[in-house]
Amino acid sequence: MPDYKVYYFNVKALGEPLRFLLSYGNLPFDDVRITREEWPALKPTMPMGQMPVLEVDGKRVHQSLAMCRYVAKQINLAGDNPLEALQIDAIVDTINDFRLKIAIVAYEPDDMVKEKKMVTLNNEVIPFYLTKLNVIAKENNGHLVLGKPTWADVYFAGILDYLNYLTKTNLLENFPNLQEVVQKVLDNENVKAYIAKRPITEV
Amino acid sequence: MPDYKVYYFNVKALGEPLRFLLSYGNLPFDDVRITREEWPALKPTMPMGQMPVLEVDGKRVHQSLAMCRYVAKQINLAGDNPLEALQIDAIVDTINDFRLKIAIVAYEPDDMVKEKKMVTLNNEVIPFYLTKLNVIAKENNGHLVLGKPTWADVYFAGILDYLNYLTKTNLLENFPNLQEVVQKVLDNENVKAYIAKRPITEV
Repeated sequence: MPDYKVYYFNVKALGEPLRFLLSYGNLPFDDVRITREEWPALKPTMPMGQMPVLEVDGKRVHQSLAMCRYVAKQINLAGDNPLEALQIDAIVDTINDFRLKIAIVAYEPDDMVKEKKMVTLNNEVIPFYLTKLNVIAKENNGHLVLGKPTWADVYFAGILDYLNYLTKTNLLENFPNLQEVVQKVLDNENVKAYIAKRPITEV
Repeated sequence: MPDYKVYYFNVKALGEPLRFLLSYGNLPFDDVRITREEWPALKPTMPMGQMPVLEVDGKRVHQSLAMCRYVAKQINLAGDNPLEALQIDAIVDTINDFRLKIAIVAYEPDDMVKEKKMVTLNNEVIPFYLTKLNVIAKENNGHLVLGKPTWADVYFAGILDYLNYLTKTNLLENFPNLQEVVQKVLDNENVKAYIAKRPITEV
């Protein structure tokens, strides 16, 4: 088994889906959490100067979705053939589009612009995505695609806290089928064990 | 061989990397170009109401990168093992980050905000990405990763016209190694044949 290290700040955010996937598949990993003080010296050693980073047998790679897809393959959550993999990738990219649309508003520096964008986000974007995804979850028996557990479910469960944090809401409050997707992941014994021991962080 | 259809507007933009990949691998596809008049009736039949869409044996899937990755697997441009696939995915996602950073500025509706963001884009973001990618291309013998042809090269060559259009520049003017990456793709006989017969469009 390769030697895995996850490098990220001491936050859930973009690193948590990767930590969830490694935990879900019971792949031991070194959960390295970098402080803001350590980061400037470390930044030049990271690909594109970004984190999260996954180190596999000493080789450092970045990009959240790419790393999650790689881990998913190791634990047989990436589909049984290219057409299944395509359908999983498409739903993951849809969740990622949703995240980006939320992040653009949450990180908007101009308060007036932010307020205006927030209206569209809350009245249109969020209901559109969650209604669609909830129907998909219903049609797939409490999974996001293919009617079975895939890394799309784990990714969604892993990124949800961050999306709730960014929107200052409980996004899934009225979406029971999406709640079911997340609960199934959280019921995984290895994910439970990881959550029990992870540092408590706001983000 | 599956029956492939690409649905998109009559533009290069996000659909061109997919058309390039199908052409590169000599996979025949139906290049369906939807007019603005036809779109409202068709929109509800498309996953998430978006295009481009790839139809494989009657099944419609969306998400540009997911579709490109699927086609890349069919034509052996997606890496020989999961670790190679990870490295390809990471560079493709980096190019996609670059595209998103450009698009956010290009599609900014407020002229004052746009002008301000344009300064950072032109002075920091664009030079940062292109300098990094050019070094990578040099280290990889005129490819973007793994020192050999992968779908990252084809994706980059396919999206370049759109990035030039959005930035109103010739992005690669001073980056000869990236020019080499693109030229190798454009020298592919099947890509040449596709370009010779595609409709001429501004975007």
